[in-house]
Amino acid sequence: MSIRIAPTKATRAINLLRAVQNHPPTCPCHSNPSHHHNHRPSLASANASLSPRQLTRRLATPMDHSQQKEYAFEMAASSIRFGPGCTKEVGMDVKNIGAKRVMVVTDGVVNKLTAMKQVREALDAEGVDFQVYTGCRVEPKDSSIKEAIAVAKPYQPDLFLAVGGGSVIDTAKLMNLYTCFPEADFLDFVNAPLGKGLPITKPLKPLIAIPTTAGTGSETTGTAIFDLVSKRAKTGVAHRVLKPTLGICDPLNTRTMPSAVAASSGLDVLCHSLESWTAIPFNERVPRPSNPILRPAYQGANPISDIFSLQALRSTVKYLPRAVHDPDDFEAQSEMLLAATLAGVGFGNAGVHLCHGMSYPISGQNPNYKHSGYEVDYPIIPHGVSVAVTAPAVFKFTAASNPERHLAAAECFGVDVSNVKKESAGEVLSEALAAFLEKLGDQPRGLKALGFGSEHIDDLVEGTMPQKRVLMLAPNLDETNEDVEREQLRGLFEEAMSY
Amino acid sequence: MSIRIAPTKATRAINLLRAVQNHPPTCPCHSNPSHHHNHRPSLASANASLSPRQLTRRLATPMDHSQQKEYAFEMAASSIRFGPGCTKEVGMDVKNIGAKRVMVVTDGVVNKLTAMKQVREALDAEGVDFQVYTGCRVEPKDSSIKEAIAVAKPYQPDLFLAVGGGSVIDTAKLMNLYTCFPEADFLDFVNAPLGKGLPITKPLKPLIAIPTTAGTGSETTGTAIFDLVSKRAKTGVAHRVLKPTLGICDPLNTRTMPSAVAASSGLDVLCHSLESWTAIPFNERVPRPSNPILRPAYQGANPISDIFSLQALRSTVKYLPRAVHDPDDFEAQSEMLLAATLAGVGFGNAGVHLCHGMSYPISGQNPNYKHSGYEVDYPIIPHGVSVAVTAPAVFKFTAASNPERHLAAAECFGVDVSNVKKESAGEVLSEALAAFLEKLGDQPRGLKALGFGSEHIDDLVEGTMPQKRVLMLAPNLDETNEDVEREQLRGLFEEAMSY
Repeated sequence: MSIRIAPTKATRAINLLRAVQNHPPTCPCHSNPSHHHNHRPSLASANASLSPRQLTRRLATPMDHSQQKEYAFEMAASSIRFGPGCTKEVGMDVKNIGAKRVMVVTDGVVNKLTAMKQVREALDAEGVDFQVYTGCRVEPKDSSIKEAIAVAKPYQPDLFLAVGGGSVIDTAKLMNLYTCFPEADFLDFVNAPLGKGLPITKPLKPLIAIPTTAGTGSETTGTAIFDLVSKRAKTGVAHRVLKPTLGICDPLNTRTMPSAVAASSGLDVLCHSLESWTAIPFNERVPRPSNPILRPAYQGANPISDIFSLQALRSTVKYLPRAVHDPDDFEAQSEMLLAATLAGVGFGNAGVHLCHGMSYPISGQNPNYKHSGYEVDYPIIPHGVSVAVTAPAVFKFTAASNPERHLAAAECFGVDVSNVKKESAGEVLSEALAAFLEKLGDQPRGLKALGFGSEHIDDLVEGTMPQKRVLMLAPNLDETNEDVEREQLRGLFEEAMSY
Repeated sequence: MSIRIAPTKATRAINLLRAVQNHPPTCPCHSNPSHHHNHRPSLASANASLSPRQLTRRLATPMDHSQQKEYAFEMAASSIRFGPGCTKEVGMDVKNIGAKRVMVVTDGVVNKLTAMKQVREALDAEGVDFQVYTGCRVEPKDSSIKEAIAVAKPYQPDLFLAVGGGSVIDTAKLMNLYTCFPEADFLDFVNAPLGKGLPITKPLKPLIAIPTTAGTGSETTGTAIFDLVSKRAKTGVAHRVLKPTLGICDPLNTRTMPSAVAASSGLDVLCHSLESWTAIPFNERVPRPSNPILRPAYQGANPISDIFSLQALRSTVKYLPRAVHDPDDFEAQSEMLLAATLAGVGFGNAGVHLCHGMSYPISGQNPNYKHSGYEVDYPIIPHGVSVAVTAPAVFKFTAASNPERHLAAAECFGVDVSNVKKESAGEVLSEALAAFLEKLGDQPRGLKALGFGSEHIDDLVEGTMPQKRVLMLAPNLDETNEDVEREQLRGLFEEAMSY
């Protein structure tokens, strides 16, 4: 009683299918990487922004055609619950999952906020046994992560519950990972080349994340970032199994952000969306993984991440200035939390590139800058500030790879691009970004304002070079030739000195 | 070493937070359901399309204010892998999950296609033990589901792998459910009021779904639909735990669809996206669940489902005609598979309403219509045809609830809505739909063309009334008064007789 296919059509389809499968390299539908991304540029236009010397080098260093390009993308995200007041439901969630010993992970500041009060009450109401770890460090180091793991291991929780910003959620992810792999060396799962980058071969304990900032998107992603102090580098672990089981996004929890934190968190969202939107497309990434478990979470722009990234960009442009300038604008704050989560789904499946790759040495090699509005007793370039400060330079550089996408991004800032030539896409987006940052207020107008000078550039370049995981997604960056790559990064840092 | 919040701001924020939490009904930010959905209409405009008699009844039947409105939404979706050829990876996926006994679920037709050949090869290559069940029925009945369950139970698989259209994937979901709850009565988890609608209290076995049609979106949703023959009704089970672990969307697998199947599958996508986009917003649904596990998967339109639904609608309008008219247009077919999946994420978290609710009796009470292009030996109104046939009537009826959304939908069909008045939104979208269906070809221009007459309307209305799960999301439908509801449905079926 099932449907039979008309024989002629079936035969035709099957023959076609065979033809496609037997001759993948010649099928225009899936061997041509720009087929589904018809805004992708030709090699000629990708090379347009290179100097003659760079171009000579690029042409002298042909692509490695022995490696096959990627042909699929994967989209995975935490379940997300969004609504004012939904923090209170977490006790029932824990019970519904069947957990009995919960490791609550937070930091000293968040521990005193209403969010944590509600979490305690919710767990108590369900009679769940829990222990609170308040030792997370803002911008965690490997040492702070290891201390946290040492607390989790003997407690043997059957669920982790992170309440805080990205630093807290990332710490909780790593506590979960190394509690589930107690014998592993800390560097085993850390991204290569700084760590061993081993695949994670089994599921972890459930993790529920309750963000209290609107920026990181960590509640939806499988990424955890920290400072590897011995290498003076930011790195991390990135794998889908790290992603939380559930992200509870309660806009009441982000009301406690000071305006400076709202601004820098929001700039992180801005760059997540812009970088994932402009990352090289998934089907230009090489090599194609030999096993789907090896497909990276940061796989390049793809048709699903695109939807999230562009929507998050539009929302950020619309709501971030309102959220920063008016602490009573709950609608804008709420929309920024949603935008952060959407951008998280976007970059969590597509990746970020130059702003993030360059931000790690910028933060780590901070000359002595202390961002206004952050009441800390040490110099700090907040993560969002360090990613946004290079953005005007970065997107001027990447625009030639895909002018249409860069113009579409400029359009999100309200620029009328109808008469803009493709060659000007980078300039136009760069100006739109600079104007946005200036209007937002309290943002350094370039690396100089952070205290960097030309004497720092070598170190900044060397600090960026190991960020392979994100640099491989940077359009226009020549990763096949380290000399060219260094020169390109040097140019970017020079350009980013002031805008 | 953590960030301290400036005391004045902290105090201010905490006071504000307390104020918001202590007085939820008076906070304009989250007690007003139209705050985040500022296109939502006033009661006056919602009533605009009611007859004076209906209006009198509605006003005489006030909303039950004892029940609190929903305040949160949840978005959950399967992980999705998308790419031509990725079916071949499934053996490694099964192995990566650690499964050793796989129940492969398919039907007699798909069993002979390349997709199943590749699945067999992929599982063999990894040395995985598997058993193939080919007995799924297109448009499954409770009896066919029970037969399938009876095969799965003794095999005790540790993973289910569905290869086929929505009927196959839905059957596999229920095989998984009742194998994990072997003592349960079949009606225990079936949607109320036809079944008991019990919550599902533990996770199921992993399920991988490989769709071979571009329509159902079942690879991303927690919904399984079947005919409950004794009640002459379509119903099903809907819960997040039913959703597949992974959907493998391989556009090579949908090439085998005959053009008539591509058309009706695509019309299902069209209605998924239009209905979820226009469903009542999540924060107008009552009652708010007492436990998050009771929050339905079909929760009403929300800011995340909106993104998916609108994108799927745009893609369907663009690519469905090409996919139907040119069997060699692989790009269009591929985009339709992606649209089906996106719409699946959208309606899987927002729900559908009148087109789907009314389609169940239309298909089930088929007078004697056999859709052209379907080579079956029995009368059939394909699911996509039965949902689309009422669409011009449905959206004319629902438009008053939210003219802006209906105009935005009309815009997706290429209509210039800049000078259209709100009052005409329904008319305009209805005409755009009718024109689209006519251009697509081979579609019945109303219920008359399917053989229905006015003598069938009573039965059609009675067959729709039990579809509470979807009707509760229908804008403009008065669910507080069954007499009014019946009258409204009668009006809709009359209007849908021809377009």
